[in-house]
Amino acid sequence: MAAIGIDVGGGSIKGALIGEDNRIVKEAVRANSGARSAEDMAADMADIIRELSADCAVDAIGVGLPGTVDDAAGVVVYTPNVDFRLYDLRGRLLELTGHTVRLINDANAAAFAESLAGAAKGAESAVIVTLGTGVGGGVVIGGKLLTGYTGAASELGHMVIVQDGEPCGCGRKGCFEAYASATALVRMARRAMESNPQSLLCRLAEAEGKVSGRTVFAAYDAQDPAARAVVERYLDHLATGLANLVNIFYPEVIALSGGIANRGESLIRALEERVFSQVHGAAYAQKRTRLTTCNLGYEAGMIGAALYAKGMQ
Amino acid sequence: MAAIGIDVGGGSIKGALIGEDNRIVKEAVRANSGARSAEDMAADMADIIRELSADCAVDAIGVGLPGTVDDAAGVVVYTPNVDFRLYDLRGRLLELTGHTVRLINDANAAAFAESLAGAAKGAESAVIVTLGTGVGGGVVIGGKLLTGYTGAASELGHMVIVQDGEPCGCGRKGCFEAYASATALVRMARRAMESNPQSLLCRLAEAEGKVSGRTVFAAYDAQDPAARAVVERYLDHLATGLANLVNIFYPEVIALSGGIANRGESLIRALEERVFSQVHGAAYAQKRTRLTTCNLGYEAGMIGAALYAKGMQ
Repeated sequence: MAAIGIDVGGGSIKGALIGEDNRIVKEAVRANSGARSAEDMAADMADIIRELSADCAVDAIGVGLPGTVDDAAGVVVYTPNVDFRLYDLRGRLLELTGHTVRLINDANAAAFAESLAGAAKGAESAVIVTLGTGVGGGVVIGGKLLTGYTGAASELGHMVIVQDGEPCGCGRKGCFEAYASATALVRMARRAMESNPQSLLCRLAEAEGKVSGRTVFAAYDAQDPAARAVVERYLDHLATGLANLVNIFYPEVIALSGGIANRGESLIRALEERVFSQVHGAAYAQKRTRLTTCNLGYEAGMIGAALYAKGMQ
Repeated sequence: MAAIGIDVGGGSIKGALIGEDNRIVKEAVRANSGARSAEDMAADMADIIRELSADCAVDAIGVGLPGTVDDAAGVVVYTPNVDFRLYDLRGRLLELTGHTVRLINDANAAAFAESLAGAAKGAESAVIVTLGTGVGGGVVIGGKLLTGYTGAASELGHMVIVQDGEPCGCGRKGCFEAYASATALVRMARRAMESNPQSLLCRLAEAEGKVSGRTVFAAYDAQDPAARAVVERYLDHLATGLANLVNIFYPEVIALSGGIANRGESLIRALEERVFSQVHGAAYAQKRTRLTTCNLGYEAGMIGAALYAKGMQ
C-alpha cells in the first residue's frame, strides 16, 4: 500500500511517495517561506499530492508540520515559523484533492520514522532527540507515538535542566534546548572567544566569517583548549538532559539527530559514560539503553508522516 | 474476579483482597524492617496470601516492591531499603503457596491504582508524583504503565532540574527529588531558620523539638515571613519539575500524593499558575492538564499491585 508523506518546513515543502518497504519511491518539492499564506501552502501541498499520486493508487497521506496540530480535528493549531493559526488543513486538502490527510508534528514524524524504519527499528521503545537550532524530539513506546492529551507532548527540549538558567526561546529559563542545541553551543563558543582572543577557535571563526557548531568542533578536533572546554561543558549539559530522559522513559534506544549528531560515533563515545553514570540504579540494571545516531536524515519527516497516515500509529 | 495486592514497605508488609469493583474487601498486615531476610519477608507474603485467599478463589496476585523488579523473570532486582538482591520471589512464592505472582515497583503500583481507580480514573493518560521523603512517580498512558526497557522507567524524581545543584541520594546533583521532596522542604527550612532565629518557624520547631513539612506549613499559614519565603521557593522548584512533566508527557491528569499533597486544594491553587505559565505553547493549547491530588491514600499500592496482576496492564 503506497502512501504519501509531506514535510512542511520554513524553507521548503517536501513530499515523498513511500512504497510498501517504507522507502521513498519518488519525491516532489516546492519552495516555501515564513511570509506565505496558509492558502498558498495548502495549494502547494495539493500540487504535491497530485504529482505523486498521478501514476499509482495512494491509500494514505500524512502531513508533518513544524508546530502544534490537532489531528483529531484536522486542524493546524499553531506553527511559530510558518503561518498557520487554527487552520483547517484537512478540510482544505479534501476540497482541493479529494484525499483525507492525517496531521502530525514534524519532530514526532521524524521520530516515528526513525523508530519504525530507522535507527531504532525493532526496538520496543525509543526516544529521538534532535540537536539543531533548537532541541526537539519524539517518543515511541510499543510502536505508538507519545502525543499526549493535546497532541503536543514530547517537547523534550523544554525540560528545564538549570532552573533560572539561560533564557530559552519558549519563555522559560534553563531549558535543555538552551544548553544542548547548536545555538547554545555557538553561544558558549562566543563567550569563550571573548576570553580567549588568541585561540584557534577565534582564528577559525575569523577565517570563516562566523562561528558555527562546525567551527567549534574543528577547533576541538585540533586540540584547541578553548574549544575543548566549550565542547566538554556542552557534552555535560547534553548528558544531563539525556540521563533525565533515560530515568524518565528508560527506552531501549535513544537516537540523536540534527547537525551535531553528524559527529556520529565520536559523539556517542563521548556521551556514553557521561550519560550512564547518571542513570538511576545503573549499577543493578541488567539491560541498558542503546545510545546511537539517527540514519534517515531529511527523509525521516516524510517517511514518518506517511507511516503515521498508514495507521501504523 | 478477586485479586490480592501486596505492598512491601520498610515498616510493614500489607496485603488486601480486592473485589471486582477494585475496592478492598479484606486486609492483612505483617510488621517488617530493613534488617529482615528475603526468606522471612517471602514467608510473610505467603502467610498473607493464605490468609486472604482462605474464603474465596483468587485469580491474580500482585506484589509491589520498593525498588527495581524484573516481572518478566519474576525476580526482585534491587530494593535499597529492604533486603532483596536478585531474589526469585515468584519462584519462592510459587513453592510456598502454589500461586504465581506478578511483580511491580511500588510507586508504579500506586500510580496504576490512582490512574485506573482513583484520582485519574477515566483519564487517557496520567502522571502521578509522590512528594514524600523522596519524589517518586508513575506514568500511565492509554491504560498502560510506563515501565521501560528494564522495568525501571518513571524515575521522575531523578530528573535533574538544577544542574550541579543540591546533592541527591541517587548520586546525581540537582534532582527534582532534591528540591521537591519533604526532605528538601525541611532542608530549606533549616537554612532559613539559621538566618531567621526570631521567626515563628523557629519557635514552632523548638516547641515541636524538630522541623517537619508540617511545621513549615503551619508557620506559612500563620504568615511567618521566613516560612513564606521557604514555601514560595519550594513551590517554584516543584512547579519547574511539574511543568517539565507536562512538556514531556502532556498527560490529561497530574495527581500529587504523599505528605505534602495532604495540603490538598490550597497546594493545587498555589501551583496552577506557576506550572501552566511554564507549559510549552500554553497560549494556543485548547485543552490543559488537570492538576489534582491523589485519593486512594495508603491503599493505592495494594490496589495497584492487584490491578496489575489482574492483567489490566
